[in-house]
Amino acid sequence: MTLYKKFLEKFSYIQLLRQVEKLLHWDQNTYMPSGAVEIRAKQLAYIAGLAHAEATSSAYREALEQMVDINTGKLRVEEEGLTLIEKANLKEWTKDFRRMIKLPQSFVKTYYTVTTTATEVWKQARQLSNFALFSPWLQKVVELNREQASLLGYVESPYDALIDLYEPGVTASVLSTLFSDLTGFLSAIVKKTNGKGSPYRAYFNHAFVQEDQMKFNYLLLETMGIGNENSRLDGSAHPFCTGIHPSDVRLTTNFDNGLLENIFAVLHEGGHALYELGLPKEEWATPAGQSASMGLHESQSRWWEVMVGKSLPFWNYMYPKFQEAFPQLKSLSLSNFYQHINHIQSSYIRIYADEVTYPLHIILRFELEKQLIEGTITISDVPNIWNTTMEAYLGIIPRNDAEGCLQDIHWASGSFGYFPTYALGNIYAAQYFSTFEQSFPDWESKVAAGSFTFMNNWLWEHIHRFGRMYNAEQSIKRVTGHSISTQFYKDYITKKYIDLINQ
Amino acid sequence: MTLYKKFLEKFSYIQLLRQVEKLLHWDQNTYMPSGAVEIRAKQLAYIAGLAHAEATSSAYREALEQMVDINTGKLRVEEEGLTLIEKANLKEWTKDFRRMIKLPQSFVKTYYTVTTTATEVWKQARQLSNFALFSPWLQKVVELNREQASLLGYVESPYDALIDLYEPGVTASVLSTLFSDLTGFLSAIVKKTNGKGSPYRAYFNHAFVQEDQMKFNYLLLETMGIGNENSRLDGSAHPFCTGIHPSDVRLTTNFDNGLLENIFAVLHEGGHALYELGLPKEEWATPAGQSASMGLHESQSRWWEVMVGKSLPFWNYMYPKFQEAFPQLKSLSLSNFYQHINHIQSSYIRIYADEVTYPLHIILRFELEKQLIEGTITISDVPNIWNTTMEAYLGIIPRNDAEGCLQDIHWASGSFGYFPTYALGNIYAAQYFSTFEQSFPDWESKVAAGSFTFMNNWLWEHIHRFGRMYNAEQSIKRVTGHSISTQFYKDYITKKYIDLINQ
Repeated sequence: MTLYKKFLEKFSYIQLLRQVEKLLHWDQNTYMPSGAVEIRAKQLAYIAGLAHAEATSSAYREALEQMVDINTGKLRVEEEGLTLIEKANLKEWTKDFRRMIKLPQSFVKTYYTVTTTATEVWKQARQLSNFALFSPWLQKVVELNREQASLLGYVESPYDALIDLYEPGVTASVLSTLFSDLTGFLSAIVKKTNGKGSPYRAYFNHAFVQEDQMKFNYLLLETMGIGNENSRLDGSAHPFCTGIHPSDVRLTTNFDNGLLENIFAVLHEGGHALYELGLPKEEWATPAGQSASMGLHESQSRWWEVMVGKSLPFWNYMYPKFQEAFPQLKSLSLSNFYQHINHIQSSYIRIYADEVTYPLHIILRFELEKQLIEGTITISDVPNIWNTTMEAYLGIIPRNDAEGCLQDIHWASGSFGYFPTYALGNIYAAQYFSTFEQSFPDWESKVAAGSFTFMNNWLWEHIHRFGRMYNAEQSIKRVTGHSISTQFYKDYITKKYIDLINQ
Repeated sequence: MTLYKKFLEKFSYIQLLRQVEKLLHWDQNTYMPSGAVEIRAKQLAYIAGLAHAEATSSAYREALEQMVDINTGKLRVEEEGLTLIEKANLKEWTKDFRRMIKLPQSFVKTYYTVTTTATEVWKQARQLSNFALFSPWLQKVVELNREQASLLGYVESPYDALIDLYEPGVTASVLSTLFSDLTGFLSAIVKKTNGKGSPYRAYFNHAFVQEDQMKFNYLLLETMGIGNENSRLDGSAHPFCTGIHPSDVRLTTNFDNGLLENIFAVLHEGGHALYELGLPKEEWATPAGQSASMGLHESQSRWWEVMVGKSLPFWNYMYPKFQEAFPQLKSLSLSNFYQHINHIQSSYIRIYADEVTYPLHIILRFELEKQLIEGTITISDVPNIWNTTMEAYLGIIPRNDAEGCLQDIHWASGSFGYFPTYALGNIYAAQYFSTFEQSFPDWESKVAAGSFTFMNNWLWEHIHRFGRMYNAEQSIKRVTGHSISTQFYKDYITKKYIDLINQ
């Protein structure tokens, strides 16, 4: 047996532990009785702690060190007979190991404790719309993230070290360039809108039976090519998708916010699910069997939710089935429905934003995060900068902090560097799509005829099957022939909203 | 901190691992996509193996040895300031440890591998009704169980060592006495029946909508005092109840076998659930927070399914609600419904047997198991002994082995010594109930009025709250003032079926 195979056999239990951790989270968010939360936290802390301890143990280091120089990342000569996948896995294992040993156990514990309390305080603060209540905890979380950045190390900005946790290879400076290019472009479109809601909103004030919605959800998943052998759909407070491994992918949706919110959540999580299901099953224990980054993941969800799911050809095919499932909408024409789901309007809450205003919500957060982590603004500046930026980008000012800077859980839970991946998802999706469109200039007629296999095959062939073998930047370059660029996204938006832009 | 508290703090993660193992099983039997089964087996094997390794480690032994002499089970002098619960926990931890270290890792692995394959072969053999296909694997499982018995050690019969795994303190000789006393008594009643099915069976040939059944299930659980804060009900192929810990109890039922089968499954699993929910929550990491034995658990499920659930007062209260939920049954009178659910008829399949014939199914299995483990019969004798015993006890002969000796999964999965606990459950339930009846001679009128709290309180006060502090025999003695006896069960059956007996 090769050293590589021995290593894999010996340490694959670490991945089993991470799978169990994911299942515990899934269960907590779907079916767990509420009274079980206290002991669930103990289970999670133990399993996560064990996975971390095992993946940073001296036995692990020694076994890895036999194949690769951990300091330089160079493969040892005698291991050069490795396959491409094996080489990529070794590179990723080494990167993960180097990152993990930089964070001492005591730091990880403090981080966990502080963010757990910060999240509870944030919930209260949001309810009371009281930023002052949250600010000392936000201060602590920012300080911990600055400490984390310095433990992890960086070249230019401490924020780079945090972005790297979610989007390997992308830096604050890259993001600044991409985002500053988008801000003016998108704000100009927003200025053309009338600030009013969709005229067709009233059609959706009907009560739609949950069973009917679930039936249509299954039809959507079936249409997307998602079967029930390796995945399932449940309800939860917030929609999510968790790939426990490529043969066990769990999606959730939510019925409380409205019919369309449910439907686009299913398309969104379905996009995530297809990525997870397309990862190489035999690599379940290795990086090659895992997704490349949050941004790349988001590109797959936005592909289905927006590029396809808010396109006319898609609804040419689905709309008769949709009206059959929800006869309350018989009198709403396809053309008006299409206008409704693509209506652009500035709004306060990110998660309900349309595809034009959405990136502006993200860029606002990116700018705040960057400055907080780089120490160029203080916590007390946040509400004011939030509100003035909202006004500059979207022309509206939140009436209170609950619908302003207190709306998201991310900062409380310690996720600095995560927000940008939401906007990157749109940029990547449009860039991939432009290449896809070159291969299938007739994609619209195929989709309108209910054919989706060719699209899934393309996504699998070019993106899904590589797991972490390429990071997003490398994948984009390989697939599209270009570096990451906002041009494709701008072209897509321009084409789709040309009437609005030219008015 | 006392040695006890240090030990508890240091090793409670072992119980967390066992909880996770239970959740993985629950998920596999309820929601897991079928394609995930292969990696689920790896997750389970790893978690179970880790729990076993940690609970038999030298660190664990040393910490335990500081408080108790593991060889003799005697507490060390300096630990005499312990509470009753702490003393009981130390006794059980020691007992568990001594048992576990007797089984070498290699044996546990072989046992797992053989029973996994045996279960797959059994499924096929049952489908084909081909005992010859299963017999070499049954042979292996019996041999492994004989080996297990000799590793665990015993005084009289190797079967004693196996029974002790499920029903601590009970021996084959005790069971032989109890069961031989029941055989004649029950067989005599069976001989009085006409061998025909219930005349009211046709009423249940309607299709009952699953949602309506689920609604009624929740009403049953609510009536029993089971809320949704610490428990939940789902569907699965076979009904079960798993107490992950006293704040997280999962019940399942099944809708495929008929309305009544679902309802009595809910009452049965509800009885198990009340026991699990009644265990002391603060003792989640210790034996005092765990159930005492399979037989005691079964007494709680049979209490609700049969002693209460098939009583007239219970249906005096529930029947109007039942008819409202299922208007198809409006024309079936309560009196005829009561006769129907208590109709006695010999049948081949254990899990569908009524309360009079059920123990005879168990006693047949007990006698076979005992002889197989003691080596007084061979595998090839099984089908013949099965059929002649069925004829002697129940007056019927299975038409094939699928509805005879191949019907149960238990032997394939390695469970020898488990079956007797099903009959013990009935014996214990009747014995506990006779004491309960002395405290509440008016229980029937209370139940008929929809009051159940007094009953739950009694069960909690006398049984649930003690966990493993007393084994079943000790509990029975404490609560009822008598040793385990079949007299109470016989009295209960005689009183309930007096018309049949006297005819």
